[in-house]
Parts: sequence; C-alpha cells; structure tokens
Amino acid sequence: MNEFTGVQHCIILHCCPWISWISDVIVVVSPENTETMKTIIEKYGHKKVTVVKGGITRHRSIFNGLKVFAENEFSSHLLQKPEVVIIHDAVRPFVEEDIVAKVVMAAKEHGAAGAIRPLVSTVIASAADGCLDHSLERARYRASEMPQAFLFDTIYEAYQQCTDYDLDYGTECLHLVLKYCKTNAKLVEGTADLWKVTYKRDLYAADSIIKDNLSQQVCVITNVKETLAQVGFLLPESLKSQIKVEAISQSLSKNDSHLQNIISGQCYNFVCVNDKRCAIQEIQELVDMLEKSNIPLLYPVVLISVHLDISENNSFSIGMEDLTMIKKFARETKKKNILVYGLLIQCKDPLLLQETVNSAAALIMALIKDRNPELIGQLLVA
Amino acid sequence: MNEFTGVQHCIILHCCPWISWISDVIVVVSPENTETMKTIIEKYGHKKVTVVKGGITRHRSIFNGLKVFAENEFSSHLLQKPEVVIIHDAVRPFVEEDIVAKVVMAAKEHGAAGAIRPLVSTVIASAADGCLDHSLERARYRASEMPQAFLFDTIYEAYQQCTDYDLDYGTECLHLVLKYCKTNAKLVEGTADLWKVTYKRDLYAADSIIKDNLSQQVCVITNVKETLAQVGFLLPESLKSQIKVEAISQSLSKNDSHLQNIISGQCYNFVCVNDKRCAIQEIQELVDMLEKSNIPLLYPVVLISVHLDISENNSFSIGMEDLTMIKKFARETKKKNILVYGLLIQCKDPLLLQETVNSAAALIMALIKDRNPELIGQLLVA
Repeated sequence: MNEFTGVQHCIILHCCPWISWISDVIVVVSPENTETMKTIIEKYGHKKVTVVKGGITRHRSIFNGLKVFAENEFSSHLLQKPEVVIIHDAVRPFVEEDIVAKVVMAAKEHGAAGAIRPLVSTVIASAADGCLDHSLERARYRASEMPQAFLFDTIYEAYQQCTDYDLDYGTECLHLVLKYCKTNAKLVEGTADLWKVTYKRDLYAADSIIKDNLSQQVCVITNVKETLAQVGFLLPESLKSQIKVEAISQSLSKNDSHLQNIISGQCYNFVCVNDKRCAIQEIQELVDMLEKSNIPLLYPVVLISVHLDISENNSFSIGMEDLTMIKKFARETKKKNILVYGLLIQCKDPLLLQETVNSAAALIMALIKDRNPELIGQLLVA
Repeated sequence: MNEFTGVQHCIILHCCPWISWISDVIVVVSPENTETMKTIIEKYGHKKVTVVKGGITRHRSIFNGLKVFAENEFSSHLLQKPEVVIIHDAVRPFVEEDIVAKVVMAAKEHGAAGAIRPLVSTVIASAADGCLDHSLERARYRASEMPQAFLFDTIYEAYQQCTDYDLDYGTECLHLVLKYCKTNAKLVEGTADLWKVTYKRDLYAADSIIKDNLSQQVCVITNVKETLAQVGFLLPESLKSQIKVEAISQSLSKNDSHLQNIISGQCYNFVCVNDKRCAIQEIQELVDMLEKSNIPLLYPVVLISVHLDISENNSFSIGMEDLTMIKKFARETKKKNILVYGLLIQCKDPLLLQETVNSAAALIMALIKDRNPELIGQLLVA
C-alpha cells in the first residue's frame, strides 16, 4: 500500500510515514523545494519516503507521483506497484490512521473512495451578471476532502486517459475515475480534523491544535528528599485536574526504565522538583536522556525546573548569577528543541502551601500550553 | 438602516454597534441566553441594541428579528421600519465595515445582496448508495457567506409568504427572496475574514486573530531621567522592527493629552521604563488613566513595567518582597482587564547594552502577543 501527498507546499509530514502498513510514501514537491524537503526527511529520520518533482497543476503533480510505480521517468528504479494507493494533501496534516484505513478498505471493494464532510456554507451558482442563479440544497451535497484511495490500476488508467484540459483545470481525482473508468467512488464520512490549512487563520488553528496535542501529559519527577515530600505529593495532585500526570518519586538515574518508557511514550512535558537553588545538573541529566532516547525531537519538549524554598528566611532573594546561568543553559538546550524554564515555589507559611502549589500548577500549565521559546531561561515565582 | 444577527449562539458583538450609519441592531438569542446577552450589552455599553427571542430554526429566528419593525409580537413599541436590513451571523465576528457597506449599496440597487467566497473544497453529490453521483465544477460555484442585505419590504414579504417547510429546513435567505419575490440577489466578493467560526479550531483561530489585532501598536513611556536616556532611545528602536511604536519621553502626568490620545486611539499595549526597583506608583497612574479614559476594556490591556539596572553592583538580587508586591498589584488590576508584567533590563557592561535591549524587546513582544493572564505579576529578566 502506498501513500503520497499531491500538493507542492508541504507543511508537515508527520503522520503518514508512521502508519506501519503503508509501504511507500511519495512526496510530490515543487523543484525549488525539493532540497528543503529532503533535509526535513533526513532530519526527522523518515523512512520509506521518495521525493518526486511536482508538475504545474495538482493533477500533473499527482500523475508524476503515480509514475514512480509504473514508468522510469522520475527515478532509475521502479518502486513495487501497490494494490491500493492513497492520495492525500499535505495541507491536511491532522489525518488519523482510522480514516486512512477506512478509505483503503472501501477502495479495495469499490475501486475508489474518498473522505467527505458536511458543507459549512450554502453553495450557490452565479449567473453571468454576478447575480444569484440558484442555490443548492445544502443537505444533498458534501465537501470532498482527503484522503482518497484507489486501486492503483484504476487511478493510473484514469490519468493515462485524461485530457490536457483535465490535467490543467481539473482538481478532483474521484471525478477522473468516474469519467474514465466508470468507477463510482465510495464516500466515507471524515472527521473535522481533515480540514484544509488554507488561510493564515488555519495556520493559527493548526499551531494551537499541535500545542493542545502536546499538552496532554506531564511527567513530574521529585527528588527523594524529606523536605520535598509534601510538594512532591501536592503538585501532581493539583496538576491532575488539568492534565494526565505521571509522578516519579526518585532521584534521576540514567538507567531508570520507568522514565525511559514515559519518554518513549511521546511525553513532551517534564517537571523536575528539587530543593537546590540551581539544579542545572539534574536538568542536564534529563536533557541527556531525551537526547539518547532516539525519539526525534520533532516538537519542542518543555522542561520546568521547580525549586522549592520553604525556609523562613525573610530576606530570600534571587541572585543575578543564578539567573544568568539558567538563561545560558536554556539557550543551549533550545538548539535541541528542549525549552527549559525555572519556577520557584516559595512558601514560608505552611498554611498557604496548598494555595502556592495551586498557583505553581497554573504557571506550569501556562508554560506547557504556550511553549513560548522567548520565555526560556526565565525564573517564574509561584 | 438596521442590522441583526440571526443565530442563537452569539460569540462576539464587537463590530456592528460601532458602525455609525447603522441605526438599530437586533440580536436574536435563544431564550436561555437572553439574560447573558443583556448583561454583555450593558457591560460594554452597547447602544441601539434590541434583544429578541430566537425561534427553533435559523429562518424562524431571523423572522422574529424582522417582526420588531412590523409587528407588535415581541415588543411593546415598534422600531422605525428601515429601508435596508442587514442580516449577519454572530459566528462571523471579523466582518469589516467595508463589506457591510458594499452589500447595503448592492441591496438598494438589486433588492438583495450577499457576500460570497470561493469554494475551498470540491462539492459533490452522493447517490443513495453512499457512492459518488457527480462532482460540481468548482469554478462555477461559490460559498454563500454573510453579511447579506435586503430591502426590508422584500425580505419581509418573502418571510411572510414562505412555507413551514422553508422555515424549518431552509437556511438561505437569498433563496427565499428569489423564490417568493423573484429577486436575484447581487453577489459581492467577501474577504477571507468572513469565515464561520464553527469548530474548536475556529475558536483557536479567532483567538489568535484578536491577539494579532491587539499587537499592532505599543506605547513606550520613558521617565525623563538621564540614566534612562539611552534605553529610552534604544528600546523603541528595537521594537520598531516588529510593531508600531509611540515613544513618549516624559514623566507621567494625568493631564498628558498625547498619552490620552494614544489611549483613545485603541492602543492596547504600554511599556513604562523606570529606574526605580518597584515602580508601582507610576504603573498605578497609568492604570488610573486607562480606567478614566472611558474606553470599554473589552480586550485585555498589556502593561509592562520595565526596570533598568545599570549599576556595577555584582551582587544584585531581587528581593522576595518586591516580587510579592508586584504580584499582588497585578492580581488587582487583572480584575479591570489590565495585565501587568515586570521586566528587568540588567546590564553592567555598556558594550552589551544593545544586545540586552534586543532581548528585552523580544520578551516584550512575547508578552504582548500572548497576553497570558497566568503570567501576570512575574518579573522577567532580559
């Protein structure tokens, strides 16, 4: 089974290479972006990806992608021809494996299948004078979305038969197989996530969705010291109302398999609770673990160093040297896509501890949700 | 001329009451949300707004709104019947006065007019078996959006004549005037901003657009002290590459008309540069000015207190009492929708001043763009 993206402006290639039953991924890219795309593929270690030069229209690009399995035009060796090919737009980055599987199964049965969504607005036809000709009954129509899937022989035959007019002005693959192969595609209800990232506002939305997805789980690591026991208990409890929490009460050790499992499980948020003023060493150990874990740091990891101060010393103060050190360290780890922030929980009155911990949890959630690269190395105070 | 929103779930009512040539605004709201809507209207001082109870479908709600000008069903006194009525959805909060004016002018000439947008996806018709029947040629069709405008008599006649089936299952006002009044609406190309806030991702996008709009301009107020002269010059310069800057070099005074003008000009971002460690008093004066300016604080104002420290004292430190005081103050002003943050520019080496100022500007931009209410009262260090 093969999958390829038929658009020229790839945004994110994050889902398809990870679906295990997809054997090849063909990315069709405009000539000027080929090198950038190859760099991205290499950087994030994507396997089974072939880059193909795009054409000047959507259909010409898709046709180029299909040729990789049938003609020697674009590469010296042919990839093995698949039974089913999935066509997807890179501008729909949030496609789920479930809908991909559904269109593939439907294509096997019907020869072609595509995801659809309800129309958001009424569709109208305009007359030559710019006035309304007629409006379509919204319930009878659907928006055709991606992914779509086809028996390879069917879609390839359609592209071979279609005219230059089709290739230059057409946009709908389902239409081609209907017109040239008499194949009525099966329509599969897709999820709202399949929307096309088209306008600037869609980039904003995509950014927020990614941040949302990364903010589902936090790992709280508390050093095994008596002074930290209470906060080590209260902080995860306070966070639990807002996010899934994995709490680990132990000293960091490079051989900790529990922590290793959490990192491999795609956790993107870590909180280290310590009673040292400047726990650079402890944070460094975690950074090392993240680096050695071999998960590609495709998205930024948030790492918050929490320092607990419960001394009754009224003249507590933060020295500039400590601040400078954290900032310098954070600037280095940012290059590895790890965002380090500092948080001080200062509580002289034990009766106010719960309240202070709650405000620390609120700050932790704000840092996790925002993932703001400009605020790295800052020391916040709860 | 009158305008009303025909949907039940109002999100933002921020544009229409401010268009001066609109004489009445009718907001149609579901019975359970009527009180909330009235509270919002009162809180933000919206004039010329009448709240009307919605029906169980879109068309029934719009019809209820129109009746305010023609029947005594919903209010004891009739509003004066307008020549033209604008129908808009509250789920399209970013409508510009320009497009509203265009549909109104077109409605005066043609009897009806509506905004349209190109289709983002191909539209298809499905057969009874869930397979593709045919796809529409995308270039021939348009998405019908809002606002729409009508001669009042035309749209009111259409609603009086239409059937229960129309009222229960129809969605398109342009269709009603075509069917019952033989009026072919003029179609007006709208901007991308007219999109319908439908899914969660649209709320994310709307949030980002509002924050973007609020981050266009910053007012930098520098105290007239020799020690601050250099930063008072460098900081606005550094900010200018990212945002429009109004720089004021003087001590804050309640009678400052320049600053008053900036506040009235809907500036939502202020930076106060001072050499005092904890310039609460100066910030308080600005907060007072904002409160007395009578602009409704519909959106949060960002107020950053910048403290410059160029002493060569190596043992500089931030005392906990100062931090506690800023946080307490920020919590109070947050209730007024004013978000206060602290920023320390610490520079011992004059050769590094430019670099430090640049990093201060980056932090200021991050605070302005994010408007994060959780981070108020924190002291960041550049």
